[in-house]
Amino acid sequence: MTYCVGLQIDRGLVLMSDTRTNSGVDYISSFRKLHHWSVPGNRSIALLSSGNLATTQSVISKLEERNKAPSERHNSLFDAPTMFQVATTVGELLRETIRESTPSDSPEASGTFTASLILAGQISGMEPRLFLIYPEGNFIEASLDTPFFQIGETKYGRPILIRAFDRGMSFEEAIKLLMVSFDSTLKANLSVGMPLDLLVLERDSFEPLHQRRILEDDPYFRTISSGWSEALRKAFEGLPDYEM
Amino acid sequence: MTYCVGLQIDRGLVLMSDTRTNSGVDYISSFRKLHHWSVPGNRSIALLSSGNLATTQSVISKLEERNKAPSERHNSLFDAPTMFQVATTVGELLRETIRESTPSDSPEASGTFTASLILAGQISGMEPRLFLIYPEGNFIEASLDTPFFQIGETKYGRPILIRAFDRGMSFEEAIKLLMVSFDSTLKANLSVGMPLDLLVLERDSFEPLHQRRILEDDPYFRTISSGWSEALRKAFEGLPDYEM
Repeated sequence: MTYCVGLQIDRGLVLMSDTRTNSGVDYISSFRKLHHWSVPGNRSIALLSSGNLATTQSVISKLEERNKAPSERHNSLFDAPTMFQVATTVGELLRETIRESTPSDSPEASGTFTASLILAGQISGMEPRLFLIYPEGNFIEASLDTPFFQIGETKYGRPILIRAFDRGMSFEEAIKLLMVSFDSTLKANLSVGMPLDLLVLERDSFEPLHQRRILEDDPYFRTISSGWSEALRKAFEGLPDYEM
Repeated sequence: MTYCVGLQIDRGLVLMSDTRTNSGVDYISSFRKLHHWSVPGNRSIALLSSGNLATTQSVISKLEERNKAPSERHNSLFDAPTMFQVATTVGELLRETIRESTPSDSPEASGTFTASLILAGQISGMEPRLFLIYPEGNFIEASLDTPFFQIGETKYGRPILIRAFDRGMSFEEAIKLLMVSFDSTLKANLSVGMPLDLLVLERDSFEPLHQRRILEDDPYFRTISSGWSEALRKAFEGLPDYEM
């Protein structure tokens, strides 16, 4: 499994992913699931991926290829006029890649090569946008009602996102929120693993404001992880006991 | 879906379940998923069920039938000499019930009638025991390492159980813990719904110490639900922000 989250806040977009890939518990590796491209002054685009690794790597490679020779191909990330068109292109590429991998004579293999993506970015003169792209190639966009997307092993880390997310929060608070959400997931599920990748895209700045790989021994992550356990226990103790 | 939890603490066993059953979002009903039988002075046995409602109701009905005429049938809940034998009997009944419902000529229907159970209880002269029974009829038992079982929609409510559970806790604290775990699940997933059923079995007392149906407007549940949201937000605010 995987855990990736994309948050849309007033100040911009904040993305985080884990890096664990496993096919069975005895074949565990670390792969990048957060990819980013930017054209300074013009656009900044990022993708988070969850699902079959061959599928997601193939999608990323094809996008990279197209970007290297944008003049030869239409619809590269770099010359699509809107984020909506970027989402359409990436969605089509994802659907095609899954279809090509799935043998047409073995319907039971359908589902094996599936994947989902979170697309985030901004093109100069337009708003920052955040999309969730399904294996079928279609997608939904974040809104005031649903200002974040999760893919992969989403349930353990969801309650705190629902409760603490606020569009007006600072980047520093948003990163803290992601760290707590990832910590809850890491503690509950072995198939999500450190290190974590972090990317912050500030509104109207077409270069990453901040990007980092957070390693297992990262002091801030350690502080959050132990601090959150302690804070939860205290919060729990502070509630009144049931009376029988 | 469903959410049921069985906790084993030093003082005894504490069980909670929701009551929502749905087949599609437009056919929602409320059914009891927590069942209890006791023979004063001799034994106290409870079952929590998750899965296909026809299957779980059939298992419960067959157990009730056997208990009404224990002399005619072997292995009723009331004359099995150990909790291990009760678990074996219930497991066999569950497996048979699932097999009888599944048409042998339609392998695609396999899985439709599946269900899982949590069995909790104590027989006089022996320790209280807690089992998780799989659709295949086999089962595992709670231990010092794994002192609680969840079935159904388990992920949202798991992080707080992992962090706050302690075998030495009082019944009052254990019920508070369950309320928090259920609140997180109810907030995140529509297919788990109020009211909740609660049962407390005290060690070496062969009648329920406490049992109650907790309704939507229960003042204690409301206090926990709003108090926990508030406490989580405060705990989150209390952690240091990330520094970019």
